[in-house]
Amino acid sequence: MFKSVVLPVALLGASAGALADEGQWQPHQLPQLKSELKRIGITIPAERLADLSKHPMSAIVATPGCSASFVSPDGLVVTNHHCGYGAIQRNSTPDHNYIANGFLAKTRAEELPGGPNTVVYVTEKVENVTDRVLKGLGAGMSGKERHEQVGARIKALIAECESDKAYRCAVPAFNRGGEYYRIKQLLIRDVRLVYAPANSVGDFGGDIDNYEFPRHVGDFSFLRAYVGKDGRPADPSPDNVPYKSKSFLVVSAEGLKAGDPILLAGYPGRTSRYKLPAEIRFARDVDYPAKVASITADLSVIAAATMGNPDYTVRYASVAKSLNNVLKKTRGLLDGFARKDIASIKDAQDAEFRTWYKQHGTGPKNLLADLDAAIAADMATTQQETAWLEATHSDLLKSARTLYRLALEHQRPDAQRETGFQDRDVSFIKARLARLEQSFVPSVDQARWQSALVRYGKIDTKVRPHGLDGLLPAQNGLAPLYKGTELGDTAKRLAWIGKDADAFRKSNDPFIQLAVHLHDVGLALEERRKEVDGNLERVVPLYMDAVVAWKKSQGKPVYPDANGTLRVTYGTVAPYSPRDGIVKGPFTTVEGILEKQTGKAPFDAPNSLLQAIRDKRYGQFRDPALGTVPVNFLSSADTTGGNSGSAVMNKRGELVGLNFDSTYESITKDWYFDPVITRAIHVDIRYMLWVMKEVDHADNLLKEMTIKYPKG
Amino acid sequence: MFKSVVLPVALLGASAGALADEGQWQPHQLPQLKSELKRIGITIPAERLADLSKHPMSAIVATPGCSASFVSPDGLVVTNHHCGYGAIQRNSTPDHNYIANGFLAKTRAEELPGGPNTVVYVTEKVENVTDRVLKGLGAGMSGKERHEQVGARIKALIAECESDKAYRCAVPAFNRGGEYYRIKQLLIRDVRLVYAPANSVGDFGGDIDNYEFPRHVGDFSFLRAYVGKDGRPADPSPDNVPYKSKSFLVVSAEGLKAGDPILLAGYPGRTSRYKLPAEIRFARDVDYPAKVASITADLSVIAAATMGNPDYTVRYASVAKSLNNVLKKTRGLLDGFARKDIASIKDAQDAEFRTWYKQHGTGPKNLLADLDAAIAADMATTQQETAWLEATHSDLLKSARTLYRLALEHQRPDAQRETGFQDRDVSFIKARLARLEQSFVPSVDQARWQSALVRYGKIDTKVRPHGLDGLLPAQNGLAPLYKGTELGDTAKRLAWIGKDADAFRKSNDPFIQLAVHLHDVGLALEERRKEVDGNLERVVPLYMDAVVAWKKSQGKPVYPDANGTLRVTYGTVAPYSPRDGIVKGPFTTVEGILEKQTGKAPFDAPNSLLQAIRDKRYGQFRDPALGTVPVNFLSSADTTGGNSGSAVMNKRGELVGLNFDSTYESITKDWYFDPVITRAIHVDIRYMLWVMKEVDHADNLLKEMTIKYPKG
Repeated sequence: MFKSVVLPVALLGASAGALADEGQWQPHQLPQLKSELKRIGITIPAERLADLSKHPMSAIVATPGCSASFVSPDGLVVTNHHCGYGAIQRNSTPDHNYIANGFLAKTRAEELPGGPNTVVYVTEKVENVTDRVLKGLGAGMSGKERHEQVGARIKALIAECESDKAYRCAVPAFNRGGEYYRIKQLLIRDVRLVYAPANSVGDFGGDIDNYEFPRHVGDFSFLRAYVGKDGRPADPSPDNVPYKSKSFLVVSAEGLKAGDPILLAGYPGRTSRYKLPAEIRFARDVDYPAKVASITADLSVIAAATMGNPDYTVRYASVAKSLNNVLKKTRGLLDGFARKDIASIKDAQDAEFRTWYKQHGTGPKNLLADLDAAIAADMATTQQETAWLEATHSDLLKSARTLYRLALEHQRPDAQRETGFQDRDVSFIKARLARLEQSFVPSVDQARWQSALVRYGKIDTKVRPHGLDGLLPAQNGLAPLYKGTELGDTAKRLAWIGKDADAFRKSNDPFIQLAVHLHDVGLALEERRKEVDGNLERVVPLYMDAVVAWKKSQGKPVYPDANGTLRVTYGTVAPYSPRDGIVKGPFTTVEGILEKQTGKAPFDAPNSLLQAIRDKRYGQFRDPALGTVPVNFLSSADTTGGNSGSAVMNKRGELVGLNFDSTYESITKDWYFDPVITRAIHVDIRYMLWVMKEVDHADNLLKEMTIKYPKG
Repeated sequence: MFKSVVLPVALLGASAGALADEGQWQPHQLPQLKSELKRIGITIPAERLADLSKHPMSAIVATPGCSASFVSPDGLVVTNHHCGYGAIQRNSTPDHNYIANGFLAKTRAEELPGGPNTVVYVTEKVENVTDRVLKGLGAGMSGKERHEQVGARIKALIAECESDKAYRCAVPAFNRGGEYYRIKQLLIRDVRLVYAPANSVGDFGGDIDNYEFPRHVGDFSFLRAYVGKDGRPADPSPDNVPYKSKSFLVVSAEGLKAGDPILLAGYPGRTSRYKLPAEIRFARDVDYPAKVASITADLSVIAAATMGNPDYTVRYASVAKSLNNVLKKTRGLLDGFARKDIASIKDAQDAEFRTWYKQHGTGPKNLLADLDAAIAADMATTQQETAWLEATHSDLLKSARTLYRLALEHQRPDAQRETGFQDRDVSFIKARLARLEQSFVPSVDQARWQSALVRYGKIDTKVRPHGLDGLLPAQNGLAPLYKGTELGDTAKRLAWIGKDADAFRKSNDPFIQLAVHLHDVGLALEERRKEVDGNLERVVPLYMDAVVAWKKSQGKPVYPDANGTLRVTYGTVAPYSPRDGIVKGPFTTVEGILEKQTGKAPFDAPNSLLQAIRDKRYGQFRDPALGTVPVNFLSSADTTGGNSGSAVMNKRGELVGLNFDSTYESITKDWYFDPVITRAIHVDIRYMLWVMKEVDHADNLLKEMTIKYPKG
């Protein structure tokens, strides 16, 4: 960690010594990094950054799967276009196509409801509850017992925290179970769409440019958080009032240049930085290649089954988009593993650690052997789970299984129910089951499942879940199931919520029947997973403790893997060299939009934007060095999925950009952070402001935000 | 001209203000550019550069289609690997595969004969003979008469010059016929292969990387010029001795960095910088698209007809390579025309010129109307010639036509014979007809011709040469011609040389018969071309005189279009931005070879080279800024085909690189020099020296050359 690498001067120009800084730090860790933050030029005190109740961290929020921030005292939230997409899509009709044309509420009254999935989480409290989760767990427990014990304690901690219904709480594991923190988040559930540029701006380049650089995307949108008149979260209502956040980010149009420091705050989803060499090899040689093959096949089935039917194509557009995204990411991981032998790098680190542990480790003698065994069991179970997913690859079957499981869990007291099936989860389950209708066609679902069953049939019988084969329909025998089911009808699907388990057992619906028949095999696999996880949860924290001690002996702090909680990372605006003789970035400019423009999606920016570029109407957003308006830029900050929409701040904590992607060569950073090659991609806030001013005339919002313009 | 453009600072790093300098100057013009040469940092006096008898220009030589230079007092010549390829290929056998393994003569005795096509031209004298070519030509002459008159005078000038058989002379037109210079070149015809790296070094990246950057090619080879003991050119003989050139280039391993000035001297082939907008549109909209379609079809026919037969594939490898090269270049031209509207830029320049001419022009009143008419006729004739080439697209037919034409021309006194069919040409014709056997298979020739006849059938009858249709065989009627001919046999083909025209007329060989039948139509087309050219030769020089006067009125010198004669260009080591957000170059490094290496051709560098890189055995060739050995680099020099192998010299005239290619985005420079995007690609001499030392151990040559190593 703390690696900083200077790229060859000749590649980057004499001025740029690029610093790349690894670490997705918990805010409370930042005071440990004081001198490092100072060294790169951050002027906000580290202690200040550690305080979630103070500016700027109290302005940093989450939306489902994304990050965001408050940019006005009246609950105005800025995030990515792709993060606000659900709210835009929900309000779009053929007559008011806000996806295609963009949307701007000129007044508060014009703001549109974002729908149940558009919510804002404000992290108010982060408490170390490791003791309450782990204390006194018997060493003799089986993995499953331990896992369930930990689960029960976590549920109790959550229930205690959620006694105030305004909050949503979680107790995620840090350092693979070495520590547990209880995260208390205000859940604001009346969130409205305020402004989004046209899709041809917000998604310029589309899937073609996904993970690529140079990039030219206006990936931003604005929402507004509303609460009841009492200031507390409330169901959507015209009577609600804008939420007054504890602070908001000042926007700086003063701009950055190569070498400037940045801070980035948000909610990174998941990383695997502390995995063992064996786990990397399993991903590289077994798991990812299988995933690539499966998704590739699934995508061709979707393409074939929707061909010639525009309605079907639309329904599966977001499914295909999301599969393509995973595919590109997984391919990127495999390409990255091929380019750099991360497993060998980890081998060396692992060997060094094991040598240290033998001499200095204070944990159990057999820790490393236990660890290796637990991880071997994890990998074996993962293969079974992969087989299971192929065998049950039908959205209708998944719905049926969810419904039956809900009925079964409902037979038990709420606290004892499986996570995800408690009372607190029912509204989410309902929303998910309702939303299926937007992306479901029976014939397509059937074709996908049939193809998945063929793939399942090719999986080594040794890694198939025990007892599953006999329960599955024949590959060519799916038609009757689709003919006989009523689950395709949303009202009928939802009507199953609340029915008891017996009703399922007596049902003639072939998907309900299959869900009932598959239940035991599925449950056995879950129990196997719990046993495996319980063992991991016992041994991995001991391992991570030892790693932390080892690092500490070298004077290095350790940041935990990303787990969807609030993190801060920092870095430098910096170009990179994807290969010998080429340098990319750090900035792209509006002229690059003209270069890419073909008039055909995804390269079909609106004429008003093109004309503003041709007329060189740069206004106050012209960068003096570039001579034009910057669009996107690169930094060395340490990000991952979930960091979409994260505030990119300058050294003073002012908003200068929005994170939205990483370069293709960076994809392996989830496993290993290579400072030479890893770059996150951000929207330059000047481009956002320029589009708002010159193209969309969002003067009301420009006025509402506090914007610092460059002098002169 | 004299344009220099500073690329956006942010793209290139603070240090690099890249200068790109247009102009392929005749050496005698350089004193006019004195201040410009000084400005960019060239320290050799311009007058010195203008003197062909002095260092460094007396070290600059030509080989067929390429440029080269002397690098020792003993006739050692360095040029590109692809320029020495013929000599390497000629000496390669399955047992001694010098193509695959490279070749190094450790002693003079081991040097291998380069063959009849491996010659060296040393330009000794350049004389302005404009008056002798043009004086007193009657204004009332027809185009054809004028063309023939000019041709006769040129032949006389050449004959006079070649009275000394050691010389080869030419009188090419400059400024499209405004000026004529007689070029007197010593023709050294005993040239031997001294050293070539393995093809996997000399052509690393092959066709895939052709015209691309980043590039990692060791495109160099060494020859040695031998002469008789009297110091005069002689036929190849073991008694010959190394040629003592007037000077040779000192090699500098001190290296260049971005922004450094360079000089480049060589023999650029052909440019079209002074063409009119109508000519650009004809190329863009008619001629090049037809060419692309024709070559694309031809290449697929070759691929299909050689498939499954390795011997056939080998025979057509160089044909396909050369077609691919033309195809990529032509596509690059079309891409470039699409990217930048050069026709419109020329429109503006043309309009400006025409306005000036109306006010200040001293030429004929109707010059511009005459010019437009002559050019329209030229374009119409070009279309007929394209149709003719499709109709006669058979190597056997071309051989037959050459042989018959030779017999016909032989009936006339040598001075009156058509250029290319004089006594001085016979040995070249013979070599060409003999060489055909290396790249000819009857069935492939037949398939190519048949496909070309199909294409011919689709050409508008209005642009087909008059009378041709009735003479051609049916598209499907070619088999009997190939069955009935003996021309496929090299000895029998060559036996026709020296036979009289009557023998041809009486022959039963179907190809000879067809050549006889086609003769009149072909001749008519030639005469039409002469008429058109004669008119162009009358009007274009007047136009160019006016252009020169116009430029002069703006204080700008004019360089003539490239015409295969010795030129000097200068520029700066500079990166470029192919599109927004990306910068390429200026240097690549040996580490890039490891990145590209796949082990499969064309990315299969030898293990010894790979190991030297992995071991970081950089020796004295490590660039201090790059920290490693540079391989190729970019400069803004103005080059074109024929400049392959050109010496790239530093400000003191020391050899620092060999030119070998241009970037894809530069291809349109033949029509319009865009200083922002135009870059030539050079081998860094340090890479050449490093390969010689660390990989091929060519210590004898390293010792023979005078090499300046960096200090310290």
